Amino acid sequence: MFVAMAGGVGAARFLQGLLEVVSPEDLTVIVNTGDDFEIYGLYVSPDLDIITYTLAGLVDEGKGWGIKGDTFGFLDMLSRYGYETWFRIGDRDLATHLHRTMLLRRGLRLSQVTADICHRLGVQVRILPMSDDPVRTMIRTEAGIMHFQEYLVKRGAKDAVLGVDFLGAKEAKPSPGVLEAIEEAYGIIVCPSNPIVSIGAILSIYGIRQALRRTRAPVVAISPIIMGAPVKGPADKLMRGLGFEVSAFSVASLYSDFLDTFIIDFRDSMLAKRIEGELGIKVIVTDTLMTSLEAKKRLAEATLHSLGR
Amino acid sequence: MFVAMAGGVGAARFLQGLLEVVSPEDLTVIVNTGDDFEIYGLYVSPDLDIITYTLAGLVDEGKGWGIKGDTFGFLDMLSRYGYETWFRIGDRDLATHLHRTMLLRRGLRLSQVTADICHRLGVQVRILPMSDDPVRTMIRTEAGIMHFQEYLVKRGAKDAVLGVDFLGAKEAKPSPGVLEAIEEAYGIIVCPSNPIVSIGAILSIYGIRQALRRTRAPVVAISPIIMGAPVKGPADKLMRGLGFEVSAFSVASLYSDFLDTFIIDFRDSMLAKRIEGELGIKVIVTDTLMTSLEAKKRLAEATLHSLGR
Repeated sequence: MFVAMAGGVGAARFLQGLLEVVSPEDLTVIVNTGDDFEIYGLYVSPDLDIITYTLAGLVDEGKGWGIKGDTFGFLDMLSRYGYETWFRIGDRDLATHLHRTMLLRRGLRLSQVTADICHRLGVQVRILPMSDDPVRTMIRTEAGIMHFQEYLVKRGAKDAVLGVDFLGAKEAKPSPGVLEAIEEAYGIIVCPSNPIVSIGAILSIYGIRQALRRTRAPVVAISPIIMGAPVKGPADKLMRGLGFEVSAFSVASLYSDFLDTFIIDFRDSMLAKRIEGELGIKVIVTDTLMTSLEAKKRLAEATLHSLGR
Repeated sequence: MFVAMAGGVGAARFLQGLLEVVSPEDLTVIVNTGDDFEIYGLYVSPDLDIITYTLAGLVDEGKGWGIKGDTFGFLDMLSRYGYETWFRIGDRDLATHLHRTMLLRRGLRLSQVTADICHRLGVQVRILPMSDDPVRTMIRTEAGIMHFQEYLVKRGAKDAVLGVDFLGAKEAKPSPGVLEAIEEAYGIIVCPSNPIVSIGAILSIYGIRQALRRTRAPVVAISPIIMGAPVKGPADKLMRGLGFEVSAFSVASLYSDFLDTFIIDFRDSMLAKRIEGELGIKVIVTDTLMTSLEAKKRLAEATLHSLGR
């Protein structure tokens, strides 16, 4: 059994390749839920949805999120009722949010709801939210403190970042099965996701980082940063705001207490020696850009190889 | 000021014609809410929506309900999550239900929510739900007791009707402005709606029937039955189930305690003498089928004429 730790789009694309070389029943994915929020009375879990839709073959491949061919009649009409519609919920997508919200109101835990959605959509990979408890990733900016979705989607990541807080993380417990999956894994993969808000949120849950440090299974991460820039998303702005150099080296340093192997892009090969020398982490250099399913598969093969498979 | 009492599609079509000859600010419509129900955690008010969408110019004219050009991605996806989708909520339509539900949860009354929706959609007619209190039209059938929507939409009105109950009607009060509108009206129009479940539900609210009996303003109704059959809907099955002959005469008899004038279709002209003779209600015979806007307008003119306008 392999465990992958995942944010949204980057992780989902990586997992598409991984499932070319690993059986779905041999994979558990632990997903960031710090981005979750409520809108229009609905509980929305962006990263869980991206991962689930992608593995169900439903995702809008162009955008990397949402459902392909979805329509936006609901949002169009809602704007007539005076609502802000910056978070682009499609009509089909909305069914997921409403279903999840109804099940949560009935008292189910987020992990149970996630299992139900996966079952309904035919996803055989085990997808676990990092926690069933509410954790909210808040971004401190020069314009004030705001939820990550407001920072990213509503305001287009334009505000200078002063800090990141994971509200509720101290009280939150890993969801059922998370620690067991890490303990029993043959190998653990940290997907190419935002190290601050995606992987950082998962690591903020007490017990997860400790389990990663403790495990004897190899831990490998794929850098989401190539040549000083994220492939997707605002990782550069967040890293810079927290005082980190925007580089694969910084990502490795954020994981250095539990990481065995770090996979970086060949365009960053000059960083290999520094990471190995200063951080004591083994480095694999390959093409990490995932521009095709074939490229994703090759990256997955290199990843599995680093785990001794 | 005129007051119209309305169910769904038949009333909405009549009101389109009425607004060709009456200013919107001179009209108050009291709408049946006995058909209201909750589905997917949303408060749905079918007759309010039909009337509002029609007067906003948004209605799907072919069906008489829903929003023209609406899509059904939400319901399609919801069926993948295992839900029944017999009540055909469109994606745009859904925005109305969600908006209404959110406002009700915030503590607004249904009449306030209705006013907000009308304002947002540019409807200048004053639309009042018959009551802000929950009233549920339940149909007693050979297959058991069920909500009207289940009887009509889910089961296609196939069950033999044994009776009709308006749950909550005894405790329900007319919504603010309903009695005042009736008292102050120049004339009152009972739209061509189902006399049992639409107009019947409105009349079941204590105070409304009494106000209609008391007013000195003329009261006119348009028959929804032509040649022993309803133009639309299950009025025949409901009337027969309650032991009524399915005819314009029966409709007139249901309203005989407050009705001054009854407008029947020319195909039913042979009933005029019986209605006038046995019930003492003045009868106007005209074309009531509303097959075009011109026909609707002529029917509205005949209606206004009966009110002395």
